[in-house]
Amino acid sequence: MIFNVLILGSGAAMPTSTRHCSGQLVSMGGKRMLIDCGEGSQDRLRKYHQRFQSISYIFISHLHGDHFFGLPGLLSTMHLCGRTEPVTVFAPKGSKEAIELLFKVSGTELRYALTIEELDFEDVRVVCDDTRFVVKAFPLRHSVPTYGFIFEEKELLLNLRKDAIEKYGLTPEECVKIKHGEDLVRDDGLHVSYKELTMSRRLPRRYAYCCDTASFDELVSIVKGSDLLCLESTFDDSFEPMASEKLHCTASQAATVAMKAGVQRLMLTHFSARFKEIDCLMEEARAVFPDTFPATDGEVYEIPYRYEK
Amino acid sequence: MIFNVLILGSGAAMPTSTRHCSGQLVSMGGKRMLIDCGEGSQDRLRKYHQRFQSISYIFISHLHGDHFFGLPGLLSTMHLCGRTEPVTVFAPKGSKEAIELLFKVSGTELRYALTIEELDFEDVRVVCDDTRFVVKAFPLRHSVPTYGFIFEEKELLLNLRKDAIEKYGLTPEECVKIKHGEDLVRDDGLHVSYKELTMSRRLPRRYAYCCDTASFDELVSIVKGSDLLCLESTFDDSFEPMASEKLHCTASQAATVAMKAGVQRLMLTHFSARFKEIDCLMEEARAVFPDTFPATDGEVYEIPYRYEK
Repeated sequence: MIFNVLILGSGAAMPTSTRHCSGQLVSMGGKRMLIDCGEGSQDRLRKYHQRFQSISYIFISHLHGDHFFGLPGLLSTMHLCGRTEPVTVFAPKGSKEAIELLFKVSGTELRYALTIEELDFEDVRVVCDDTRFVVKAFPLRHSVPTYGFIFEEKELLLNLRKDAIEKYGLTPEECVKIKHGEDLVRDDGLHVSYKELTMSRRLPRRYAYCCDTASFDELVSIVKGSDLLCLESTFDDSFEPMASEKLHCTASQAATVAMKAGVQRLMLTHFSARFKEIDCLMEEARAVFPDTFPATDGEVYEIPYRYEK
Repeated sequence: MIFNVLILGSGAAMPTSTRHCSGQLVSMGGKRMLIDCGEGSQDRLRKYHQRFQSISYIFISHLHGDHFFGLPGLLSTMHLCGRTEPVTVFAPKGSKEAIELLFKVSGTELRYALTIEELDFEDVRVVCDDTRFVVKAFPLRHSVPTYGFIFEEKELLLNLRKDAIEKYGLTPEECVKIKHGEDLVRDDGLHVSYKELTMSRRLPRRYAYCCDTASFDELVSIVKGSDLLCLESTFDDSFEPMASEKLHCTASQAATVAMKAGVQRLMLTHFSARFKEIDCLMEEARAVFPDTFPATDGEVYEIPYRYEK
């Protein structure tokens, strides 16, 4: 299953010419989902040749303009392009009233079904249960109600070894059972462990997105075991007091979360416009957690399978 | 006095990669004003190296997303950049509630004074009276309440001829009177017509912006005598029924208004994304009114002085 993330914007509140407002397009198998929708996200989708009519779910972390002000325009354009497929938006409380009022004053009547599921809870919760994955939401620590999201593949079937199919002349019914992890047992007394018949187990993949937030203890356990953790790092460590005040992370705070949570890789994003170059942030983060890289507008990051040892 | 128009976007509801949503930056002397603010207008201001902190007035024609959805983000960015100078927005009814709600849900508290003057009248009215110009607003014909705007230079002082100053040894007091159109009259019986002492009279300039609208009879008298008329032309003439239904102009309808109103030049804008090339619209318009040109994103159009004959 394809599982990747296209960066639409990796800048903080004030966009620059190279780092736009927050936005990411997550592809999981045939499904496409948008995380955050800062102003101009539809422009970037167009620039990167993405069919935004294929987006079925939109997750908004919080209602600060740089994460939210592109949503009304995107939803309108979907309508103008003749969309009939439904769209579901997951966003904090207040989003529904705001979108509805904007559509009222702009005389917009959508041709497709728009559902806005408001997020208003304090625990980690599955908000979206699709065929092959779930999306969980959980509260972050920011100046307005803010949610992080985890995109999590469902339990994967085992892959059969081709030579085993031939060797034992497996029937379709036997194949299904083995893929689910059952041993091969026949009336003639044959008993073969499923492990002998299958490839190494692929581990279900997880992508965790946390932006905007201060660092906090519980975050470590929530994002534990992620294949890729995207965490904001608005500031470098010299701005630690400002990060605390404004409830953002510094680079090494973000890296500390990644290290404690034992994630595979850390992607930093939401860089303040004051940093023309972000080398200093990368150095600070990599000193704590080496497998760190910066989100870059227009880049696609694959989330590869890992295998059970 | 500088008087020009920078095009931020010349596309219709659905932006394309070359024609963005509606937006124009009008410079008159030291003042800068924005007309319409489709999504991404702040991006375009940045791209064209315009200091948007210098914008003091913003005029929104109507609340369709492609004219309005960029406003919350621009106002936020002005705040984030440390603006303290006030901003006045002129926009149809409903804009104040929408902006206030968006700022409430996004936790935005502006550092500068924002005034939103709602437009809700049926006549032609001066809405903004500045030192050297006025801006008038008037209702257009569209599917939601929509206003056109006329940027009008105030009466200009006459320019003295240098040779006349020397010939008559004009005093500063005499100069002021002559500049206001008074003849030179002295106690010794000297009487010289101001016309002999001054250059040709420069005519106050007018820029009229009408977007979006169907064509209607009264529009001709309202925009009469404009130096530059910017009129929408969403469609070519083959889409006349759709233009009528959606209350837009075709190219030749726009040109007919320009011709009847006797304007100096006509600028067409708000081209539907269905037209990859707009040659057909230009041909149709120029057949009726030859001095027609298309608005092009990123171009600056000067409005030159004309002189009394």
